[in-house]
Amino acid sequence: MNFINKLFRKSRSKPNGIFCENLEKIIEFEPQSYAHYYRAFMHSSMQEKDENGSDLNYERLEFLGDSVLNTVISSYLFKHAPQGNEGYLTVMRSKIVSRKHLNLIGEELGLLKLLMRNIPDHQLGKNITGNIFEALIGAIYLDQGYLFSERFIQKCLIDKYVDLNELEKRVTSYKSLVIKWCQKNKHEFEFCTKVDNGCDEQQHFSVCFYIDDEVVSKARETSKKRAEEKAAKRAYYALQNEIKTKALNI
Amino acid sequence: MNFINKLFRKSRSKPNGIFCENLEKIIEFEPQSYAHYYRAFMHSSMQEKDENGSDLNYERLEFLGDSVLNTVISSYLFKHAPQGNEGYLTVMRSKIVSRKHLNLIGEELGLLKLLMRNIPDHQLGKNITGNIFEALIGAIYLDQGYLFSERFIQKCLIDKYVDLNELEKRVTSYKSLVIKWCQKNKHEFEFCTKVDNGCDEQQHFSVCFYIDDEVVSKARETSKKRAEEKAAKRAYYALQNEIKTKALNI
Repeated sequence: MNFINKLFRKSRSKPNGIFCENLEKIIEFEPQSYAHYYRAFMHSSMQEKDENGSDLNYERLEFLGDSVLNTVISSYLFKHAPQGNEGYLTVMRSKIVSRKHLNLIGEELGLLKLLMRNIPDHQLGKNITGNIFEALIGAIYLDQGYLFSERFIQKCLIDKYVDLNELEKRVTSYKSLVIKWCQKNKHEFEFCTKVDNGCDEQQHFSVCFYIDDEVVSKARETSKKRAEEKAAKRAYYALQNEIKTKALNI
Repeated sequence: MNFINKLFRKSRSKPNGIFCENLEKIIEFEPQSYAHYYRAFMHSSMQEKDENGSDLNYERLEFLGDSVLNTVISSYLFKHAPQGNEGYLTVMRSKIVSRKHLNLIGEELGLLKLLMRNIPDHQLGKNITGNIFEALIGAIYLDQGYLFSERFIQKCLIDKYVDLNELEKRVTSYKSLVIKWCQKNKHEFEFCTKVDNGCDEQQHFSVCFYIDDEVVSKARETSKKRAEEKAAKRAYYALQNEIKTKALNI
């Protein structure tokens, strides 16, 4: 019998225990079914399986919650930024659903307290609270439907963190900033990125960023995306006298 | 007075004209408000502006519809592929909402007939019907809400084109296929991509794909993504004797 079934053994409609009580304090409503929420707080380190032998953890719910979040924010932006074109809406959405925001909300809600895991906190990864927040949205969507999820996101995220004027000014992707600068100023550019594990066990990528065939910056990180963003940030500061005055209207 | 207001001049609740009649034949229901649908079929070449001077065309609705589509498909996959992990769900979603599928649905629905544009068809871009389909979903979401949009997507897309067993076997990204092959077989790889306009007016990118510091393939295209995908496809065929037998379980 798997973990969730054990928890539901006594009563399938509302199991006893501190989990339900704490969950309700966080979400401020009584779920119709608790099963989705248990899954949303189940870390893969628990190695739980469902009755078919499939992994039972929050990762599938995180995938679903991420989509729901994107749609709710897209809809919000469509209505509240009537003058923004598609490019503006895309940039603003990525600023609103940034890992930084989601992690912050996850921390504020105290989601980590409910997480069932078998490893110490420092091994959970730096985006753990944001990931559980997305999984929680996935659970709410399945339990209560789209409109309810929309109201939950409005309360936890939009009302607290979305100020379109302030967000407009925030730089979140140095890569797109330097690419746009190169394109506007007719410079050729190139990110040369390759796997470069060196002596590390974990996979690493190293990147050279060229403008007009000259190396402007280099970086090495555990993902291609992070390596390129780091190199772009270094290039941005190296070039800041040229770029800075143009940053706000890119 | 802008274009949409002109169309609504006689009756704001249900304007006359062939547009509404043809629209209802396509969507098979009577909208509560036609305004969103006019926008969904307005190409930027019409250069329409709203009362604030902002562009009035389908592009913002396409942004919204794309999100709604993603959520509906994520939700479908969550429920119908209970054994698939997050990676599987992501790959399957991208196969389902591929440009090829969306263009096909747009063509089947005959959306191009309703498109208001000021340029000849061959200048509309090859993804025009898929783009209008996404914009139409955005319009339906605003007019009828999420659940109705979900039923519309179920009818037009899922019921007709989603066979999970068949989709599992389809290769849609040669780039991810060759990257996974390199990673599994411990080869270093590198996509070196740069702007290379040559004598063309339009921006072009050229890419060299290296495995273990040897050039395996090259390509040149009008977007970085297309150039890399083309190079990866060439690499895939160049390496097919090694890869082919492993393709299905990557």
